[in-house]
Parts: sequence; C-alpha cells; structure tokens
Amino acid sequence: MTDKYTPRPEHRFSFGLWTVGNRGRDPFGAEVRPTLSPVEIVRLLAEVGAWGVNFHDNDLVPIDATPQERDRIVREFRQACEDHGIVVPMATVNLFFDPVFRDGAFTSNDARVRAYALQKTMRAMDLGAELGAKIFVLWGGREGTETDGCRRPDEAIKRLRDAVNFLCEYSLDQGYDYKFALEAKPNEPRADIYFPTTGAYLAFIETLDHPEMVGVNPEVAHETMAGLNFMHAVAQAWEAGKLFHIDLNDQLPGRYDQDFRFGSANPKAAFWLVKFLEDVGYAGPRHFDAHAYRTEDYEGVKDFARGCMRTYLILKEKAERWNADPEIQALLAEIKETDGEAFGKFSKETASALLARQFDRAALASKGLKYERLDQLTMEILLGVR
Amino acid sequence: MTDKYTPRPEHRFSFGLWTVGNRGRDPFGAEVRPTLSPVEIVRLLAEVGAWGVNFHDNDLVPIDATPQERDRIVREFRQACEDHGIVVPMATVNLFFDPVFRDGAFTSNDARVRAYALQKTMRAMDLGAELGAKIFVLWGGREGTETDGCRRPDEAIKRLRDAVNFLCEYSLDQGYDYKFALEAKPNEPRADIYFPTTGAYLAFIETLDHPEMVGVNPEVAHETMAGLNFMHAVAQAWEAGKLFHIDLNDQLPGRYDQDFRFGSANPKAAFWLVKFLEDVGYAGPRHFDAHAYRTEDYEGVKDFARGCMRTYLILKEKAERWNADPEIQALLAEIKETDGEAFGKFSKETASALLARQFDRAALASKGLKYERLDQLTMEILLGVR
Amino acid sequence: MTDKYTPRPEHRFSFGLWTVGNRGRDPFGAEVRPTLSPVEIVRLLAEVGAWGVNFHDNDLVPIDATPQERDRIVREFRQACEDHGIVVPMATVNLFFDPVFRDGAFTSNDARVRAYALQKTMRAMDLGAELGAKIFVLWGGREGTETDGCRRPDEAIKRLRDAVNFLCEYSLDQGYDYKFALEAKPNEPRADIYFPTTGAYLAFIETLDHPEMVGVNPEVAHETMAGLNFMHAVAQAWEAGKLFHIDLNDQLPGRYDQDFRFGSANPKAAFWLVKFLEDVGYAGPRHFDAHAYRTEDYEGVKDFARGCMRTYLILKEKAERWNADPEIQALLAEIKETDGEAFGKFSKETASALLARQFDRAALASKGLKYERLDQLTMEILLGVR
Amino acid sequence: MTDKYTPRPEHRFSFGLWTVGNRGRDPFGAEVRPTLSPVEIVRLLAEVGAWGVNFHDNDLVPIDATPQERDRIVREFRQACEDHGIVVPMATVNLFFDPVFRDGAFTSNDARVRAYALQKTMRAMDLGAELGAKIFVLWGGREGTETDGCRRPDEAIKRLRDAVNFLCEYSLDQGYDYKFALEAKPNEPRADIYFPTTGAYLAFIETLDHPEMVGVNPEVAHETMAGLNFMHAVAQAWEAGKLFHIDLNDQLPGRYDQDFRFGSANPKAAFWLVKFLEDVGYAGPRHFDAHAYRTEDYEGVKDFARGCMRTYLILKEKAERWNADPEIQALLAEIKETDGEAFGKFSKETASALLARQFDRAALASKGLKYERLDQLTMEILLGVR
Repeated sequence: MTDKYTPRPEHRFSFGLWTVGNRGRDPFGAEVRPTLSPVEIVRLLAEVGAWGVNFHDNDLVPIDATPQERDRIVREFRQACEDHGIVVPMATVNLFFDPVFRDGAFTSNDARVRAYALQKTMRAMDLGAELGAKIFVLWGGREGTETDGCRRPDEAIKRLRDAVNFLCEYSLDQGYDYKFALEAKPNEPRADIYFPTTGAYLAFIETLDHPEMVGVNPEVAHETMAGLNFMHAVAQAWEAGKLFHIDLNDQLPGRYDQDFRFGSANPKAAFWLVKFLEDVGYAGPRHFDAHAYRTEDYEGVKDFARGCMRTYLILKEKAERWNADPEIQALLAEIKETDGEAFGKFSKETASALLARQFDRAALASKGLKYERLDQLTMEILLGVR
Repeated sequence: MTDKYTPRPEHRFSFGLWTVGNRGRDPFGAEVRPTLSPVEIVRLLAEVGAWGVNFHDNDLVPIDATPQERDRIVREFRQACEDHGIVVPMATVNLFFDPVFRDGAFTSNDARVRAYALQKTMRAMDLGAELGAKIFVLWGGREGTETDGCRRPDEAIKRLRDAVNFLCEYSLDQGYDYKFALEAKPNEPRADIYFPTTGAYLAFIETLDHPEMVGVNPEVAHETMAGLNFMHAVAQAWEAGKLFHIDLNDQLPGRYDQDFRFGSANPKAAFWLVKFLEDVGYAGPRHFDAHAYRTEDYEGVKDFARGCMRTYLILKEKAERWNADPEIQALLAEIKETDGEAFGKFSKETASALLARQFDRAALASKGLKYERLDQLTMEILLGVR
Repeated sequence: MTDKYTPRPEHRFSFGLWTVGNRGRDPFGAEVRPTLSPVEIVRLLAEVGAWGVNFHDNDLVPIDATPQERDRIVREFRQACEDHGIVVPMATVNLFFDPVFRDGAFTSNDARVRAYALQKTMRAMDLGAELGAKIFVLWGGREGTETDGCRRPDEAIKRLRDAVNFLCEYSLDQGYDYKFALEAKPNEPRADIYFPTTGAYLAFIETLDHPEMVGVNPEVAHETMAGLNFMHAVAQAWEAGKLFHIDLNDQLPGRYDQDFRFGSANPKAAFWLVKFLEDVGYAGPRHFDAHAYRTEDYEGVKDFARGCMRTYLILKEKAERWNADPEIQALLAEIKETDGEAFGKFSKETASALLARQFDRAALASKGLKYERLDQLTMEILLGVR
Repeated sequence: MTDKYTPRPEHRFSFGLWTVGNRGRDPFGAEVRPTLSPVEIVRLLAEVGAWGVNFHDNDLVPIDATPQERDRIVREFRQACEDHGIVVPMATVNLFFDPVFRDGAFTSNDARVRAYALQKTMRAMDLGAELGAKIFVLWGGREGTETDGCRRPDEAIKRLRDAVNFLCEYSLDQGYDYKFALEAKPNEPRADIYFPTTGAYLAFIETLDHPEMVGVNPEVAHETMAGLNFMHAVAQAWEAGKLFHIDLNDQLPGRYDQDFRFGSANPKAAFWLVKFLEDVGYAGPRHFDAHAYRTEDYEGVKDFARGCMRTYLILKEKAERWNADPEIQALLAEIKETDGEAFGKFSKETASALLARQFDRAALASKGLKYERLDQLTMEILLGVR
C-alpha cells in the first residue's frame, strides 16, 4: 500500500524516543499508554517508515542506571537500530525533568547544579557520539523565571555562555565533531524562558568562542506559541547558515505547548514552511517533535507518526506544483519586473545620484500588486483544486 | 507643586512629536483632537517637564513640503526647542504611512521603492543631524507580508542589510556620528513583520558591515504583544552592548498595539524593567512612545505625559527600596551562598575533574528557594505597604 | 469561465459596502484606494457574483447628509440593487467612527450620547427597513474601557439592555419585523470591549424583554482574536436557536483585527465551520466581513471577493466529501457503537440503578479512539489528495 | 506578628486541598514536594489563617478506596477541620485525571463513560454534603476536542445539559441544597474546551431545567488565558445573579495555565477585581485556586498561601482608599453630571420625542473626559504613593 506519499530514507524523517513513546501524561491527567522500551520504539519507527531516531540521555538510559545497565541498554538499542536500518542523527540531554533542575540547569543560582548539568551533558554527548549522532540539541527548558527577583537575566546569559563554550571545547577535545543546535521556547514550563525565540539564540551564538559549531533548532510549536511566523524565523536561521536541525509539529498561537501532528493545526503555515525548506535545499533531518493525542493507543500512535510524514510529503508535492504553476509564475514574473538594483554600494557618487533622483510616489503606489490573487491561487493548490 | 516624582532633565525623559501630538485616529474612528504644530508640542512638552523631543521626518516636515517650507519649519522648531530648553536626542524616518510603502520600504519588491526609501531616510538623517540628534531609529513597520508568496524572507533580509550598510556609510561620510537603533515588532500593520523581536535584530546586526554603529530600540508594547518578557529582551540587548535607545509604554499581551501610558497596564512588569535599567546604569534617553486615550483633550494629554514620567520615577524609587530592603537582601545573600565557580574554563583537567564529581541530586533539589517570599516582598514594595 | 465553485444566488453570499469599499486606511497608514460610491460597489458585487449587500447607515448616507441628499442616495442605491439583482439582507448602524462615541454609545456615561446613539440607530433601522433588510446587526465597537475606573461594567450592561429593549419595541411598533443580531468582540478599538464573546451575548439576550427577537452575529476574526474555537461558538448559538447572521473572514489568534479573505489564514478551522453550517442547514446569509490587502487596486478587491466565495464553496464540497467518505463513515460508526442512552431522565429509580452500576475503568480507557486517523483523513480531504 | 492584612474568618478565604497540596508536577517535570495527607493540609491551612478548605472527591478519597477506607478518611478529615476551625464551603469532582475521561466525561462519545461520570459526581456530591459543602463546582476539564471530527459540539452541549439536569434533581431529591457553579476554561488540557468562557456558561444555564440552582465559578487564570478582562466576566455573572463562587489566582495572557499567587502577575487587574467584589458586597468564598512555584518546599507553600490572602487584603484596603479619595470622587462626580435618564421606556411618544431631538455632536465630543488622570490616580493609590 505504498504511494507517492510513502516515506523513504532520503526524506530524512526522524522522531525522538520521547515522541512516539509519549505516554500521554499532562498537567491534569495520568499516563494513558503503557511504557514502550527503546527497542520497541525503534521497531515501531521502522514499521511506519522513519529514517532516524533521536533521544534525550534519559529517554534511553535511566538517570540512575549503573554503568552496566547503561552499556546493556546501549548495546540493545544499537542492535535494534542496525536490525531495522534506523540511524541516530541527533542526541540531546534532559536538563528539565529531575527536581534538581527546578530553577534552571546552566543558569541555576547554585554552582553545583550548573556543574552537574554540565557533567550530565558531557555524558549525554558521549552517549550520542557512541551511537553516531552528529547533531547535539540543547533545549534549556528550565532556564527561566517565575519571579525576576531571583537573578539578573544578563547573569543568566553569561552562565549559559560559559556552559556552551565549555561543551564546544569538550566536543573538539573528544573529536566528536558535533554541531550544537540551540532550541528556543518562550514559556512553559517556566513562566518565562530566557532566549524565548530563535532570533535570541542567533544573536547569542555570535558571542560564543566557537560560533561556527553552534546553530539553532527552531520548533514550529515554540515560535507559534508566541504568535510568530515560524517560517520567517527559519529563514533568518537559514540565511545566517545556522539551520542545523528543525523540530516539526503543530500548534495554535497563544496556548500551552501542543506538539500536534505536523500540519494538523494550520496547514497553510505548514505549506510555506515545507516550501521554504525544499526550495532552499535544506539537507538536515526533518524531525517530528510531536506526540499522539491521549485518545490513542499505539495503533493510533502509528497513525500519528505516519500522518506527520505523509502530510510533509503532500505539502512538498504542493510546493513543486506551486513552483510550476503557470499563472503563479506569471505573477512572480510581474513582481520581478520592477525589481533590479535599487541603489548599489555606497560611494559619494551613488549617494549623490540617489539624492538627486525624482520619484513619482503616486504612480509607484497605484499599481495593484495582485497578492490576493497570488494567495488565492496558493489556497487552491493547497486545497487540491488546482 | 513639585515633589520627588517631578521630572528633571537628568532623567532624560523624551517624547516623540507623534506621541503627545497623536490625534486619536484608530482603525474604527476619526481623529478626536485638533492638530498641534511642532512648536506647540515643544511648548507642551516643556510645560510637563520633558527633557527631549524626537520625530519622524514627516512629523516635523510634511512629505510634500518645499525646501523653503522645510527650512522655515526647522528654524521655528529649533527656536522653540532652544526657548524651552528641549533637546533632540533621536530622529527617525516614516517609511510606513505613505501608500508607496504599502508593501514595504527597504524590502519592497520594487527597486524604485527601495531607492526612494533610502533617499527619504538619508534626508531624514540630514534633518535629524541638523537638529542635533545622535541616535537614528529605524522601525520597518511595513517590512513584512500578508502572503508569503510575494517574496522569500531571506531575500528581504538581504535587502534590509544592503540598506542599513548604505546608511552607515552615509552617516560616516557625512560625519553625523549616528548610532542606529533598530526597532522590532511582530505584526501590525502587516500580518507578519520581518525581525519580529529584539533578538532577531540583535542577530541581524552581527551580519552588517558596521555592527559597532548599530544597536536596538526595544519597545515595551512590541515585545509584549507577542507575550514575551520585555525586560529579558532588554537585558540581552544590554549584555550585548546594543541598548542604544528604548521605547517605553504599556500593553497587554496578544492584542493590537495599544501604546498605553507607561506602567498603566502591568506595573509589575514595568517595575522589573525600571529596576534593570537603573541597576545597570542605562544612560540613554527614556523615550515614551505612547499616546493618550481618545477620551482626552490636550489637558488629558498632559495628564498622560506627566503620568508616564511620574510612574517611572515612582518605580525607580521602589527599585532603590528593593535594593535596600534587609529581608530581600538576606534572601539574595542566601541565593549567593550556593553560587561560586561552577566548572571554570575548559581543559582536559577541568573536564576530567568534573566528570569525576559526585552530586547528591536529592539534596540539591530539596532546598526551598524562597522565591514565593521574595516575590511577595517585591509585591509589597510595589504596592507601597513595605 | 464558470465552474462548480462559481457563486450563485442560492448560496446567499453577501458583502458589506464597507468591505469591498474599504480603502485600506490602517493605524499606521493612509488610504491606498480611491473612494467608490455605493452604486459602484453594487456594480462590483454584481460583477463578482454576490447575492446581497449590507451597510452601516453612514456607509450609504453620510452622517451630515440633508434629508434630500439621503433620499437621492437611497433612490440611486435601490435602483442599482434592482438593476443588478442584489438584495439587502442586513443593515446596521455605525456607533463607533464619530468622536461623539469615543467612550461608548449605548454605554456612554453621558446620557445625551446614549440618547443620540439610540436616535441614530432608529434612523438606521428606518433606512434598512426601507431597503428591505430583515436583520439588524448591532456591534458595540466603542462599548468598553481603557480604565475600569470610568464606570462599573454591570452599569454598562444595564444601559445596553435598556437600549436593546427600546429598539425591539421600536421595531415592533414600526412593523419592521427585524431580527437583531448582536456581534461580540474582545478588544480593539477599546482596550476591552464589554460582551467580549458570542457566549456573553447569548447570556445577555435571555435577560431582554423580547429575547425571541434577538440573536447573535458571530464573527470569525473576533472570536479567533481571543484564541477561541469559532465553530464551537457558532454551535452554541445554533443550538440555542440564535444564529441570526454570521460574519465570515479570517484571522490569526492574538493579534489586531485582520479581517482577511475567508479561509486564507487557517483553512482547517474554516473547513470545520463550513461543514457545521452546511450540516445543520443554516439558511441565513453568508456575509463576508473582510477586506482586501492594502497592496491591491480594485481588480485585486475583486480577486479578494471572488476568493472568499470560492473558498467557501470549495470547503462546502469537501464537507460533502467528508460526509461520504467510507473510511470516515466507518470510524464514525465505530464511535456510535459505544453511544446510546447513558442514564435517562432522573428518577429515584434511575439514580439508584446508576449508583449500583459497576464500571471497568481500565477497560473503558484502553480502547484506542482512532482520532489521529480521523483527523489525518480530514487533512487529506482538505488537501485534496483523497 | 499580625497586622491589618492578617486574614480572619470573616474574609472567607479558602484553598483547595489540591492547591497547597500541589506537589509541583508539570508537563516537563516530576514532583518536587512530598505528599501531604488531607489532615496535614488542614493543619497547614489553619496555620496560615485560612477559613475554608475545598476538595475534589479524589483529593480526599483515592479513586479506588474501599468504603471502609473512605469512611476512615472522612472521619479523620472532619475531625481535623473541627480541631482547627476550618470549614468546607465547596466540593467538586475530578472528571479529568483518570484515563477513562481522556475524551470527556459528560460529553464523551461512550455512554458508559458518561454514566460513570454521573455516578462519580453523585458520590462526590454525597461526600461534599457529608462534610457540609453548600456549593458544588463542575469543571469540565476534558469536555473538548483535539479534532472536531469526533463529535458535533451541539451534541456535546445537549449531553452536558442532560447531566446537569440530572444532578440538580439528585441534589433536590437528596435534600443537599447545593448551588452548582460551572467553571469555564478555553483550552488545556484539551486543544479546545467546550464552554470556553464564563459567558458561554451563563448562556447555557438559562437552558437548564433548574437555572435557579446553577451559577458560575469564574477563574482569573482561565479568562485571562484567552486575554479577556476577568472583572468584566465577573460583573456579568454578578449582574445576572450567578456569581456563586470564584477562583482567585494569577496568569499572563496567551500562555499555559499558570495558577500563580493571587495578584502576582498583574496587580492592576487584581485591584479592579477586588474592588468590584468588595463594592458589590460579594459574600461568597474567596477561593485561591493557585499553587506555589516548583522552587518551594512547604515553608514556601505557606509563604505562597499567606501571600494570596495578604495581597487580597492590601488591595481591599486600596479599594477603600480609592472610594474615599477626594480627587477621584471629584472626577466621578464630573462623570455623573452628564448622566441621567437618556430616553426612558419605549412609547410612541418617547420615540417621537427622541427622533425630534437635536444633538450637537461636536460639542459632545469635545469634552475631555479626564480618564488618564483618573487612571493615573488609580495607579498611585495602587503603588501606595497616594
């Protein structure tokens, strides 16, 4: 039962252990699904056609595991990945679940917590490297505040910088060849999280000792929670050469973190995103950081996972159709007609020439730009009637 | 009738011509107040005790003014400023009101519009420099989209970069000594505006030819519209040495741009902001980019302007009180007790030592951090009962 | 060039004069399109295939028109409607644009303003009745506050009740046979508007002297601004027999009032809405309270208007397809399997019987509900690949 | 160490077992505090000075307790309440935590789940009545959807109506004398919850068999999540005679459910709320449905609980001060000057007279309403400098 929307390895679709393995716990309710072991999750991912699996350290290895337990788990997990042809493109560290991180990890006021967070991250890097990961994501879920009396935010920035600088050196020293990808979120579980947007992290990266090793991992839901245009954030990261990873899911603005099936909350926004990624040739993983509704059993989890990938591929096809549509191309050609060099590089001459130019504002303003038509054509491609 | 909350020049309180001169037009209603001339506005600002006045080019000089009219207006305005001891710390350019900018100025698809926008900005820089401004704000109110079919956002970024690079050279060439301050806003009047947050602009600045000349102008309302913690954004800008200007007003999250009297929507947020600015010693203008309710005549506009400054000074006093409060200081001292060097600079030795450390997670997690108490004490200072 | 998505009179598509006649003024920009006369707008609506036209009193008759001017305007407008086969299903009154309403109309603190608002509304009812309108919409755009010091909100409720009661009597007395439709909005242009949601008005209606004459006019953008599920609000109105009119457009949550082309911001939400309206057999007007982007000339306005209707019809077809889809029907049948009478009417016997029942919670909770599959099938119908 | 802000029984401050007993679990983190027994919680509440304690059935009696265990727990709890002089004003039922309710309780598609939910509620009513509760709150936390394909929302409304009608009869039959209070929430833990606002429930109540027995329980955080003015919602409920209970806490708009210490997120909004409740003489419980930060141990929980009550009392004092302030009173007197009868009851004569009146719009519009001054005076009272 394969069709053109069936996932293939070259699509680079990955899921976290915590996504299809999510048991449905939420702030007002208990778990609704039994625990799957990492090996079972790998099997499930293979069944639905995924290419890769990612993990937080403790998704794979419990926080209190002995070295022997750890090694057995890793061995079995690696074997499962090999058996099913699943790769590990990315690893990350859980610095938010344990109570020790209740007031932050790298930005905690307690130097011992900061040290422990760093140690835990180094070990998570070891674990990821051992399993082949080349991307290391850092999401500072607890790096934030409920009351701004507790610390100065500029102090928090410095603390995070120290940690990331240390981790870059550790990666170099160990020969891990990691790219770090920083993941922003505006709030939840903290009232406010530092570095609330992808833009904030892009700015921070430039202040690091090794900016070339560090990029971002934008997540649809996180930018959308703040009501921002996610594709624009991705584009800024891309333009800066910093789109090292991406977290795909869906979300309505101004709400709790929903992590819905990709494309299911706002397919228009998802379309522009897929079109951008495909148009620019983004070659990294398409990671789905989402989970199934609590109404589902594990058959429903598979429906969820298949739906994420299928919707991506449907939208990819629509992006191609958009690019090939003659009427859309004609509208784009019309847009290009008025483009050209606006003013060139600065020199005394170009400046003088520009100051001397006459512009007919009214004429420039009177031309209909046909964006309603352009957008309606987009809608009709999206809705499949064109 | 002066008291300790009476504004003085050293407080560096400024208002835009467009703020106290705002006539109350909104999307659903006509103007409610008559037009004040720039000279009358300067007089009003002097009466309420402001230190500075800012303007967009067309607040002062109508877009179709002749050179003679322009010169007369500038002369009279300068004279009014001198007569009343009002300075011009900042100037900016209006790239959003005229229909020519309906699809952007520096990011327009039409090269002639981009060229015109640049010319208009150069002239606005001339105007500002003539009147003594040392800060030049750029708010790209129309740089955005309703449909993302119209252009790629990374193309828009490149266009804006070209423009800002040109303007930096122009400032250097003319000896204007401007600092540019870029102002972010997530949406309105466009569905989405590029560079929606202060963080996005901080990242962009690092990619310019003269990053040292360019900083940001964060605005309370703009960051708050997206539900972000404004003080955190200001802190990131400050830590990066990029807080060149600030726009103070107030706003509730998730709404149209309200531009309310400073501190009137959420005094708690305003308190943390003032405390940060005063604690770090921000020395730039405190600019109120706000306007009076439509229910007001110009006496009400004065009430509004006085209220902005008065609330700032009240909050400043409260910040001092917070810093001096013995119980708060005791709580902060307790916080500091667990601080110290967490892990030092990376070396093979520090890394090994860190990996060998044992941490008692449960013990670290069990200590009550007393942030409820800290925040309640803050509230009681804020509410004036402590 | 007609196809199955070409509007026909039986679709009951209407537009306000203020929608296609919108000139593109916004808080930060001037008008971008020239004024069209009401007669020209009727012609434009006929050209694009609309069925009806609605108006605020002052869209048609300027607020300061003489009786003679009024009569001439009405005559010409009526003639244009007749010439083009356009009907007037709804009329309304502008109680927000003139500065006299800056602090409310029916809820103003000034009894003269309340009286004037009532007089103005009576005249608008006369005007609407003269042109055949049977629905009269009331949107209290200025009924709200910036500071809650100005009046008690319960006092505002009583004032509005007095006004609506009076207007119902006036309609009965004049034999106008109006149904009133109250339109909620959470904020903008006031900081907060009373009766912020459709639910708030549904509750208010029950307290009127003639609740049977009064229903609601929910608007997509208004409920969506507050991040609420619009279709749920429509369903509550429908279930209460109060869906007297509807305003279709589109909007992203947590922003200024965008009034976009129907279906263009979130087609998934638009789909569920159209499906509900068609499934229940809503027979009233489908009114598009939206306007074209500022980038458009009047050709673009036509593209906009055509797009609103076309998207509605595309979604209507998809709703039919959803209802006919065998796999979806199978899932719905499975849902129905566990339905039935839960507990019947209360009696001592039914209560005792219920208290005695044993439930196997774990068994009830373990069944996968297949909603991920159901929703993915919905997406694929929406995207046209199924 | 008592002062004028020390809580006393007449203030009617209550807390839920689940509030001070909250262990700090959240979507991204484990519990941070050990479990307190109900008896320990009663002791804690007595220590901090609360008047009442509320509970969900399963806060007190575990869902799988035997009848013997239940009776023992109730006996010990009642004894603790008596020992410490704590009353039980309100009880409620947990219809959201157990997986059986993952797709709703009273609105579930499964008739057995609806029946179980009703049975569970009847038993919770028994439990509450046994302990003296006169108010029964219903929060339908799971009554909602992720995909609107699963059921029609009007069907959900009918199901809820059947359940509430049954419960009213059960209360009458048992002689429990309950007032039911329905609690609205827009979303979380469901993507959308039916009856998202207090207004929606007020409308629903009018359609019940015993509307006189049913009112609302508005919660600060829930209305604020949707960015609505909470005090306005409370006022509508009050004006309709339906304010049967209230949930006090704090929240920033457009975010996950934060349940912060009362007054700590936006003291201005909290001030208007307290002022309204005190001005109208609301005599019901002041229930704090909030919890302490995860950074706190149980000493911090006490700080949190004390802070809730203390801030309420501080704001109450400020409301009195506002009402007594001479300048504010002068402004209010000025507002009243233009008030009076606007148009009277409808009759042919009053209608004719009104239609004949002349209004000077410009004159009416030109008067400054002094709301900026009024609001600034409010701020200065709030900030304690007046």
